[in-house]
Amino acid sequence: MYNNFLDLEPDQNGLIPVYVWPVPYQATVSFGDGTKDGPEAILKASYQIEPYDAEIGVDISTLCSFRTLPFQRSNAAGPEYFYQEMQAFLSDYHPDRDFFLTLGGEHSVSFPVVDFYAAHFPDLAIIQIDAHADLRHSYEGSPYSHACVMARIKDLGLKTVHIGIRSFSRLEHDFIMKNSDHVLPLYAWDLPSPEQAAGRVRDFIGPRPVYISFDADGLDPSIMPGTGTPEPGGLSYSWVNDFWKALWPGSRLVGMDFCELVPQPGNLVSESTAVKCILKILATYFSRREQA
Amino acid sequence: MYNNFLDLEPDQNGLIPVYVWPVPYQATVSFGDGTKDGPEAILKASYQIEPYDAEIGVDISTLCSFRTLPFQRSNAAGPEYFYQEMQAFLSDYHPDRDFFLTLGGEHSVSFPVVDFYAAHFPDLAIIQIDAHADLRHSYEGSPYSHACVMARIKDLGLKTVHIGIRSFSRLEHDFIMKNSDHVLPLYAWDLPSPEQAAGRVRDFIGPRPVYISFDADGLDPSIMPGTGTPEPGGLSYSWVNDFWKALWPGSRLVGMDFCELVPQPGNLVSESTAVKCILKILATYFSRREQA
Amino acid sequence: MYNNFLDLEPDQNGLIPVYVWPVPYQATVSFGDGTKDGPEAILKASYQIEPYDAEIGVDISTLCSFRTLPFQRSNAAGPEYFYQEMQAFLSDYHPDRDFFLTLGGEHSVSFPVVDFYAAHFPDLAIIQIDAHADLRHSYEGSPYSHACVMARIKDLGLKTVHIGIRSFSRLEHDFIMKNSDHVLPLYAWDLPSPEQAAGRVRDFIGPRPVYISFDADGLDPSIMPGTGTPEPGGLSYSWVNDFWKALWPGSRLVGMDFCELVPQPGNLVSESTAVKCILKILATYFSRREQA
Amino acid sequence: MYNNFLDLEPDQNGLIPVYVWPVPYQATVSFGDGTKDGPEAILKASYQIEPYDAEIGVDISTLCSFRTLPFQRSNAAGPEYFYQEMQAFLSDYHPDRDFFLTLGGEHSVSFPVVDFYAAHFPDLAIIQIDAHADLRHSYEGSPYSHACVMARIKDLGLKTVHIGIRSFSRLEHDFIMKNSDHVLPLYAWDLPSPEQAAGRVRDFIGPRPVYISFDADGLDPSIMPGTGTPEPGGLSYSWVNDFWKALWPGSRLVGMDFCELVPQPGNLVSESTAVKCILKILATYFSRREQA
Amino acid sequence: MYNNFLDLEPDQNGLIPVYVWPVPYQATVSFGDGTKDGPEAILKASYQIEPYDAEIGVDISTLCSFRTLPFQRSNAAGPEYFYQEMQAFLSDYHPDRDFFLTLGGEHSVSFPVVDFYAAHFPDLAIIQIDAHADLRHSYEGSPYSHACVMARIKDLGLKTVHIGIRSFSRLEHDFIMKNSDHVLPLYAWDLPSPEQAAGRVRDFIGPRPVYISFDADGLDPSIMPGTGTPEPGGLSYSWVNDFWKALWPGSRLVGMDFCELVPQPGNLVSESTAVKCILKILATYFSRREQA
Amino acid sequence: MYNNFLDLEPDQNGLIPVYVWPVPYQATVSFGDGTKDGPEAILKASYQIEPYDAEIGVDISTLCSFRTLPFQRSNAAGPEYFYQEMQAFLSDYHPDRDFFLTLGGEHSVSFPVVDFYAAHFPDLAIIQIDAHADLRHSYEGSPYSHACVMARIKDLGLKTVHIGIRSFSRLEHDFIMKNSDHVLPLYAWDLPSPEQAAGRVRDFIGPRPVYISFDADGLDPSIMPGTGTPEPGGLSYSWVNDFWKALWPGSRLVGMDFCELVPQPGNLVSESTAVKCILKILATYFSRREQA
Repeated sequence: MYNNFLDLEPDQNGLIPVYVWPVPYQATVSFGDGTKDGPEAILKASYQIEPYDAEIGVDISTLCSFRTLPFQRSNAAGPEYFYQEMQAFLSDYHPDRDFFLTLGGEHSVSFPVVDFYAAHFPDLAIIQIDAHADLRHSYEGSPYSHACVMARIKDLGLKTVHIGIRSFSRLEHDFIMKNSDHVLPLYAWDLPSPEQAAGRVRDFIGPRPVYISFDADGLDPSIMPGTGTPEPGGLSYSWVNDFWKALWPGSRLVGMDFCELVPQPGNLVSESTAVKCILKILATYFSRREQA
Repeated sequence: MYNNFLDLEPDQNGLIPVYVWPVPYQATVSFGDGTKDGPEAILKASYQIEPYDAEIGVDISTLCSFRTLPFQRSNAAGPEYFYQEMQAFLSDYHPDRDFFLTLGGEHSVSFPVVDFYAAHFPDLAIIQIDAHADLRHSYEGSPYSHACVMARIKDLGLKTVHIGIRSFSRLEHDFIMKNSDHVLPLYAWDLPSPEQAAGRVRDFIGPRPVYISFDADGLDPSIMPGTGTPEPGGLSYSWVNDFWKALWPGSRLVGMDFCELVPQPGNLVSESTAVKCILKILATYFSRREQA
Repeated sequence: MYNNFLDLEPDQNGLIPVYVWPVPYQATVSFGDGTKDGPEAILKASYQIEPYDAEIGVDISTLCSFRTLPFQRSNAAGPEYFYQEMQAFLSDYHPDRDFFLTLGGEHSVSFPVVDFYAAHFPDLAIIQIDAHADLRHSYEGSPYSHACVMARIKDLGLKTVHIGIRSFSRLEHDFIMKNSDHVLPLYAWDLPSPEQAAGRVRDFIGPRPVYISFDADGLDPSIMPGTGTPEPGGLSYSWVNDFWKALWPGSRLVGMDFCELVPQPGNLVSESTAVKCILKILATYFSRREQA
Repeated sequence: MYNNFLDLEPDQNGLIPVYVWPVPYQATVSFGDGTKDGPEAILKASYQIEPYDAEIGVDISTLCSFRTLPFQRSNAAGPEYFYQEMQAFLSDYHPDRDFFLTLGGEHSVSFPVVDFYAAHFPDLAIIQIDAHADLRHSYEGSPYSHACVMARIKDLGLKTVHIGIRSFSRLEHDFIMKNSDHVLPLYAWDLPSPEQAAGRVRDFIGPRPVYISFDADGLDPSIMPGTGTPEPGGLSYSWVNDFWKALWPGSRLVGMDFCELVPQPGNLVSESTAVKCILKILATYFSRREQA
Repeated sequence: MYNNFLDLEPDQNGLIPVYVWPVPYQATVSFGDGTKDGPEAILKASYQIEPYDAEIGVDISTLCSFRTLPFQRSNAAGPEYFYQEMQAFLSDYHPDRDFFLTLGGEHSVSFPVVDFYAAHFPDLAIIQIDAHADLRHSYEGSPYSHACVMARIKDLGLKTVHIGIRSFSRLEHDFIMKNSDHVLPLYAWDLPSPEQAAGRVRDFIGPRPVYISFDADGLDPSIMPGTGTPEPGGLSYSWVNDFWKALWPGSRLVGMDFCELVPQPGNLVSESTAVKCILKILATYFSRREQA
Repeated sequence: MYNNFLDLEPDQNGLIPVYVWPVPYQATVSFGDGTKDGPEAILKASYQIEPYDAEIGVDISTLCSFRTLPFQRSNAAGPEYFYQEMQAFLSDYHPDRDFFLTLGGEHSVSFPVVDFYAAHFPDLAIIQIDAHADLRHSYEGSPYSHACVMARIKDLGLKTVHIGIRSFSRLEHDFIMKNSDHVLPLYAWDLPSPEQAAGRVRDFIGPRPVYISFDADGLDPSIMPGTGTPEPGGLSYSWVNDFWKALWPGSRLVGMDFCELVPQPGNLVSESTAVKCILKILATYFSRREQA
């Protein structure tokens, strides 16, 4: 029923193709589960969102053609098996040509996609929006838990930027402190202005291609209540929007994901905010890229 | 059960009469419906709200007498028929004497009430609080959709102020740009201070009588989560309160509505905020009017 | 996401084609609304339902090929406009060839479909499963309300059978009593055995082609809680199943609908029961037809 | 908004007056609370219920005039204080003339009403529909808990019939066994036919006037899911209806209550069933009384 | 908070010890998930359930001492790892001495427990109450899915009885038909009386020790709405109760589980029914065993 | 199941003992009830909260040992009886040695705890975080209502600070104005900076020992939606955190409570924010105290 992101016709000639890949994966069922329902909620909400961004004067429907892929079905045998299936699916695509907008599901679905891009772009830099560092070695018995996704990504040897983090263990904190050459934290309680932040990120990543991994709980729960582990004191909607406006151009964005959204009964704020945040990234990036 | 707004006795002698008219109309059932439940939720919430406003030292129960009218029942034959019934109901009242506080229901219920006032006050100015411009010619096959209410009001030839708007089509944007003599937009992403905004609105409307049409989604979803199409980046509670404090006196307020509230299961924030926003308008306006 | 009824591939060669038409129409928003969410819930639930019916040894996936049509979008201008759009859509199909399984939405969506079949089969007989007679001339100001759908169908001059009815006005009762030549009521409080009921229905309709209009609330709320106006004392699941088993063969079924399902938060009983009831009709009818 | 039971005009001349008294009292907040929302849900549901009972050919709106009283507000000081307020309210009425249909709230609200009638009718007999015996001396520190209401009523020295009971302590069981001269249990697991039950009840109470105390959980949870302590194995809808049909005439019914309904989110079965059960009692009793 | 099943003190001397083991495992997150919340809901509901069973005159609190174990935490690495952890936990207990009442969680948690007992009782017979046969070889990529649990149990070479099954594939049906020497199906649509059923089961299992695996969806959804895949046409509450009453004595019950309960928002019917069904098994079995 | 606050082992040697006392008391059931579910929600949420506070570099698990007490069960006989039971429970503890973190329940549970401390510390000062002044003499017939708790506390002759208040009656306002020597209000609409506020509070209370009574609704509903009477315009998360950081050291904190949280279906923001707010108080206070 909600098969076309933004209710737009797919495969418009002459536009930048964007693959919208719903991955309703939720392996680890804990406290506030429901991330499996995130992709459907985001797609549904997108039908009510205006493709025209009046603030920056960009109509995403005249820039990008969204092709919404079938939902990636879960494999019940465990996370390794599921990642293999995601990787098998991606093997039909090319990281240099194909822009994926992956919709989780839990944050661990980022790993196979990052792996897909990193195999082609060994100098890939990751910008993580998140309340948590996700740098644990293992969690609840699995190295593939959502709480470990950035640790797995670090295993690939990539530079990572962590924006909005405010909840992590002392061990994760120590890891961040000791690895300042390839880990840039922007703590939520001590956030620079969006423009300053964009400057620090550009200095840190240089000309590397960028992948954005957006965990819903990076945002403040006042505008993103639908997360499994809400952490107050998060990023405001205007901060993240102004950050993207300040970040481009100069970097190449190869793909992105939006994860960990847990739809709430009768409350559409979370998914509406998610779509708007996604569109702001795409509209600011692709409009500048086209101009460049 | 909740038949007296604010749990106050109606028909208090010597006070300003205010007709509270619940119009639980919801013709167009889409995405996040439930506006039909708005009036009941607002009335119910009002029973918990203190009539005394300590900030400005005004007790609304000593200023106004609220007479809550019976719920206006829907007509299933379509919007034209329903509007006719609303107009028939209003024909027993007088626009110069009778202050209506209409509680929607979807935003389209504003039109018959505005029409009622505009017939008597041809120079009426409308202040719309809203995330959307509602200036489409037609939506989902109907010119009476909630997404068209301001277009219908423009058909009456009235000056309109649109505060907090942040989601509209390129066509609506063009319309706004081309009609700056009778359309004043205050975009949410570039909002002046409440005092500056009040100044600009006063300059724009001059001595015209004012009608306020308050769509719940003009407010930020963090304090007004209960709307059908939540749009982050909206007006804060303090901004709107300070705006009304700065607007009066000098203008005559003839009526107002509060629309598009969608109550949420187990979450009372939306309706409580709605009542407080309504009371702030009434308390600031009527206390100044009495002083004048 | 849930675009293929029963999660079956559409367009299987050699099988009986069945058009699944989701019509999430809900014009009249009252008490327990939510019928607009019925089609999506039914489709979603169908993904968990086994196509094999072990009781009668029939696998529907080897008999029928289900082609799920796009959701029919609402027209906000009122019921007449919406019916015209439904009729326009149907004009591309042929009543003699094309079997429609329409998923409401409110019961009033049955009328355009019945009209479509009746234009070709002037002797069409309607079997209505319902708690209500739906024989009012007008309701809430509209002759197209869900409470009037059988009255509209009677306007077409068709014979009608009303099974499970138990809530109606004295006027409707009088109408039923006076028109026993073309109205057969099987009251819920005095229900014959399924086999006797099938016999009485066969006697009443003779060789006429049949259209089934199944209102969810015909079933007892214990197994169909998700309706807008639940009426205890309804049909049991086994009764309706045994009725269909006893009814065929001998009659031609040209189309059917299932309406008025209101999904409930966190309770999947209603939609699961709906799918099972639909499958039982199709499996019993088409397996017998193939044998014939 | 829902101030007139069944959406009927009150105070119809020449009809039997019935006082509908909503008492949303819930002193003891435990497991599945929400009985305070029962009266509003019942009133709201009544607006969708047909006053005409086709099975017995009686239209309650031509027999009774329902006057819905204001909601009895709670007193937070504790149960004794609240009962005193209920008694004070009732002191303006007369037990011989005024028929009260009390809508709870928790079951303990029955006591002041029974006391009101018993003061005038010292030989009053109580017919309790319930899953529990409610014969504990004290519960959770209070002799006024809903689990003690029948014990309090027994303190008044009245004969009591307990229909559908299936959950009680060994002590309560012993009490029932030892007091068979003034306690008649009809256990749910060993229920006679409605006709036999009516016979046994008539034999037991003789010509005594009757008060019915209907606890929602007496019914089977399949048709009455909305209770705080659902007990499977309860009374069916048809059983209770057939019981009342068999009980009258011969007894005088002086008043009744319906208690312990806990409305559920998005599920209207409970309140709809409640209204139908209430109407069946009134329709069967008053139509026979008029005939007599 | 709800740490003692039935709110009874654990470790009562002289009573039969019963280990209540909450296993909130939900590996495979699909359609109507929420089985992870089952154990907590069952424990919580048990606090409202009377330990005295008046129908059979047995107070379970005078027979058994319930020791509620800590919740078994999930392992996110996949089902094999989790089963190993369950098996490791059980290795501290003895299958001949220790009676486990395992509370799922999804049905797949039965396998490690059955394995624990089968290792000691190689002639163990399984009585499965279920809507589904759960005899698939693999489901959603895993042989450990809840849809495969009986297939895994069959791998252990045990006799199995399947009561209430009504939804399964043709392949599962064929398997049942071909293995009638060690598979006894009692189909829901053709159910014998409880007494006849007990006779057939006794004939089939002979003197074998028995393990009961109770999947919530074996019951009819009218009294067990809280399941992930509700199937109408299921077992009634009275049928299962009467079945256990007729089954014992003569068999030894070594352990049991209750699985697949999905609590529903605001509806306590499912967990209340679950507790009552569990108690009826324990009360009928242990009271007879004590007498024997 | 959630018996150890923060999922930490209790009774760690050498750490500061903190008694976590869940008091799910809700005597007065009104509008948005559900405070009885607050303690369980807070405990459950605490299992997902990181004990390490990276902002201030403090791990609470290395400072405090939390012993979570059994839930205090309600007494249904009324508030006086319940308070007596709370006082009886506290009589086994010593106000000078034992730090209680009481989790309400409604705000009235603060009174017995404050009374417990005030008996030992006659110069105790109370810091109330709240939207309401709670200074009414009586409410809904009871002097023990949650709306009167500060009036009862004032009866003990204690100095009180009221932070974030924004909703109260004219009488309460007058009381505050007339008693400025022992009542310090910090109104939400005119809030000083956290540092200025801390200075004013220190000046006001001097060296008095402090008890904190934290009503959830003191916070802005955008981050604390789960309250019975949400009042927009409240304290931000960063304001309260910065206030505590600025307040200590210099004062002795003897105990605290967190009350009036009403968990919402599917929304974990409220309880997560509650735990974080509690931890910030404890981490800032105890880390400074240890350093001192």
